[in-house]
Amino acid sequence: MIRDIDGGVTAPAGFRAAGVACGIKRHNPATASAPLDLALIAADHPVPAAAVFTTNKAVAAPVVVSREHLAKSRGRAATVVVNSGCANACTGEAGMSVARDMAGAAAAATGCAPEHVLVSSTGVIGVPLNIDKIRAGVGNAALDLSRTGSDAAMRAIMTTDPFPKAKAVAVQLPDGRQFSVGGIAKGSGMIEPRMATMLGFLTTDAAVAPAILQSALRRVADETFNAITVDGECSTNDCVFLLASGASGVTFDREDDPALLGGLRAVSGHLAKEIVRGGEGATKLVTVEITGAATRDDAWLAARTIANSPLVKTAIHGGDPNWGRLVAAAGRSGAAFVLDRASVAIGSVQVFVAGVPHDERADDAATVMKPSEITVAVDLGTGGPHAATMWTCDFSADYVRINAEYRT
Amino acid sequence: MIRDIDGGVTAPAGFRAAGVACGIKRHNPATASAPLDLALIAADHPVPAAAVFTTNKAVAAPVVVSREHLAKSRGRAATVVVNSGCANACTGEAGMSVARDMAGAAAAATGCAPEHVLVSSTGVIGVPLNIDKIRAGVGNAALDLSRTGSDAAMRAIMTTDPFPKAKAVAVQLPDGRQFSVGGIAKGSGMIEPRMATMLGFLTTDAAVAPAILQSALRRVADETFNAITVDGECSTNDCVFLLASGASGVTFDREDDPALLGGLRAVSGHLAKEIVRGGEGATKLVTVEITGAATRDDAWLAARTIANSPLVKTAIHGGDPNWGRLVAAAGRSGAAFVLDRASVAIGSVQVFVAGVPHDERADDAATVMKPSEITVAVDLGTGGPHAATMWTCDFSADYVRINAEYRT
Repeated sequence: MIRDIDGGVTAPAGFRAAGVACGIKRHNPATASAPLDLALIAADHPVPAAAVFTTNKAVAAPVVVSREHLAKSRGRAATVVVNSGCANACTGEAGMSVARDMAGAAAAATGCAPEHVLVSSTGVIGVPLNIDKIRAGVGNAALDLSRTGSDAAMRAIMTTDPFPKAKAVAVQLPDGRQFSVGGIAKGSGMIEPRMATMLGFLTTDAAVAPAILQSALRRVADETFNAITVDGECSTNDCVFLLASGASGVTFDREDDPALLGGLRAVSGHLAKEIVRGGEGATKLVTVEITGAATRDDAWLAARTIANSPLVKTAIHGGDPNWGRLVAAAGRSGAAFVLDRASVAIGSVQVFVAGVPHDERADDAATVMKPSEITVAVDLGTGGPHAATMWTCDFSADYVRINAEYRT
Repeated sequence: MIRDIDGGVTAPAGFRAAGVACGIKRHNPATASAPLDLALIAADHPVPAAAVFTTNKAVAAPVVVSREHLAKSRGRAATVVVNSGCANACTGEAGMSVARDMAGAAAAATGCAPEHVLVSSTGVIGVPLNIDKIRAGVGNAALDLSRTGSDAAMRAIMTTDPFPKAKAVAVQLPDGRQFSVGGIAKGSGMIEPRMATMLGFLTTDAAVAPAILQSALRRVADETFNAITVDGECSTNDCVFLLASGASGVTFDREDDPALLGGLRAVSGHLAKEIVRGGEGATKLVTVEITGAATRDDAWLAARTIANSPLVKTAIHGGDPNWGRLVAAAGRSGAAFVLDRASVAIGSVQVFVAGVPHDERADDAATVMKPSEITVAVDLGTGGPHAATMWTCDFSADYVRINAEYRT
């Protein structure tokens, strides 16, 4: 049984967090206080840790350093340090030094080895990260670490996200024992009009060995964080970290344990959908369901093509039950597709069935498109058993406005 | 030597064309005359013909019929018949009959065998095409066929293209002989808010055997019509046809003859760029140049990813010399990419050189982004010899407005 609990990333036992202002984000003097821009998440000691990173070949310095640290520590970490306001990306050798110094500062402040620190940055790219500000911020944050620090940490990782994102669940096993999973995330708002970054930080008090933790995270991330899109872009800094304190006493020794996956999925799925909902200019959360695919890859290819199609996303924005654009996107995706047996549903309304349009149902379909959450389902008509689900948002003139502004 | 000439698709000897109104496009009674919506292009007799079609797996009936006819005729055609206003796509078996009847009507009216007719449709999908109107239109158009009919044919294939597109060139060989190439095209305006279709109809009075003509068209189409994008979408109806009358007496027996390719490229390249320039909401024609790619596929992958990137296209719309988005798009494209040796230029301004940002040149770069034609160049930094060039447009709020309107 899975139920929601409070506490975000500090809900699981064994973790403290903090968020402070260190002066990286620009301070608008008209507002009362400096914006939070540095977060720490700390386990009581080095614990099993897993990570998934951006697939972009242009990777930021913190991604390189975190990868190195996880390799050196064989999948253990004690501290996560994150700044917003500057991505420390495309900053060359100097940027690598800064990322290492940032990890070093966090290690010193929280009392662990540097290789037990995971480091992450989000914000404008191509601009040097001020290590003096980071050092001071890390010192302050370490003093602030608390069992109720999730909220401040969550706010410190935001850029222009329209709302903060946190989630925690308690999972009760059939024998009555329970463990919890928590997380915070930031999404696709732009910090300066440069680039969107998706960051997720997860914790659990389950006991899971590093290799199993990594497999479970990879699996859940593929179904959640990797199954969302706002505009098909993927940044230099994207990462999701998961630390497992073991403090609940519940041990998992299989990567496919349904309770472990269920808990991770509940938190990751929620955060992932919140990222889409907060996408730039988004007014609708759209679930794209593909069925009837000949292969697993085909199912994902069709889902991804539809979820990123500008014509589909603008039609959804306009409330237009335009099965033609869905059919065309599926057809061009590269997935096997049999037009005469393909079908399209918008919500519960079948607007295209086995190759035949049902435009007489367009008014019904337009009605189900009005709420802020809708589902579009496409059967590729191959008779194959494979399916995929992705989440995307609609495409509004606001997206263009937000992203076409000249950066200052 | 290649020089521009007048006459569009009827510039080459041996071709006549016509465009008439047959009542498929809706007639706004407030305007003076019914809109042209049916075009014929006729050779004096069956001549070598080549075609490239949409790669979308959801193909419209006319695409299926034209493919069948070219196979049956072994690459010969005498007549091209095209309607706008209705795509005859997603119309099932009935739609196939209509496409065959449309070809049959054009064959009867122009005095050739049905398999010597290529048929094409563009417009709203999922709606039956009225064959009675097509038959009447084909009859009228056949009576109107003339050596000056290119302009009417060009207008009859338009949907909501903001301007018509035609081009013709005369190519003079070193020995003084000359041949010509002509063409008309329609682009990515939407007829009803459903789907964009790209159609191109080319003629030449060179003498070229069908197999060589097909190879030459494939090659040139890959560098021109297949190297453009407005929004990454590809329709159920896209096609380019090329007919070679031989009337100039100039014979080509090699698919890589530079004069043949040069003539085809001059016409196809112009029409392709005009399609981009007329893209929905487009305000800028953008040339994307990739160099330093490890493979040919990598070069195209990076070019295509950048040319379709919403973040790149909105930055260009906003006049923002945002090398970060270009680097990120190249990095996520899947092409081999070496960040520390990669470079980005906007026009002649190097804004990112061997991994190092030059934001002090941002003002210069913003200046070169002001004209309606700009070039962005990305070197992938692998040291490889491969390159690719694509054309795209910027991404404006008008694109969203045009495509989000509820269809009526």
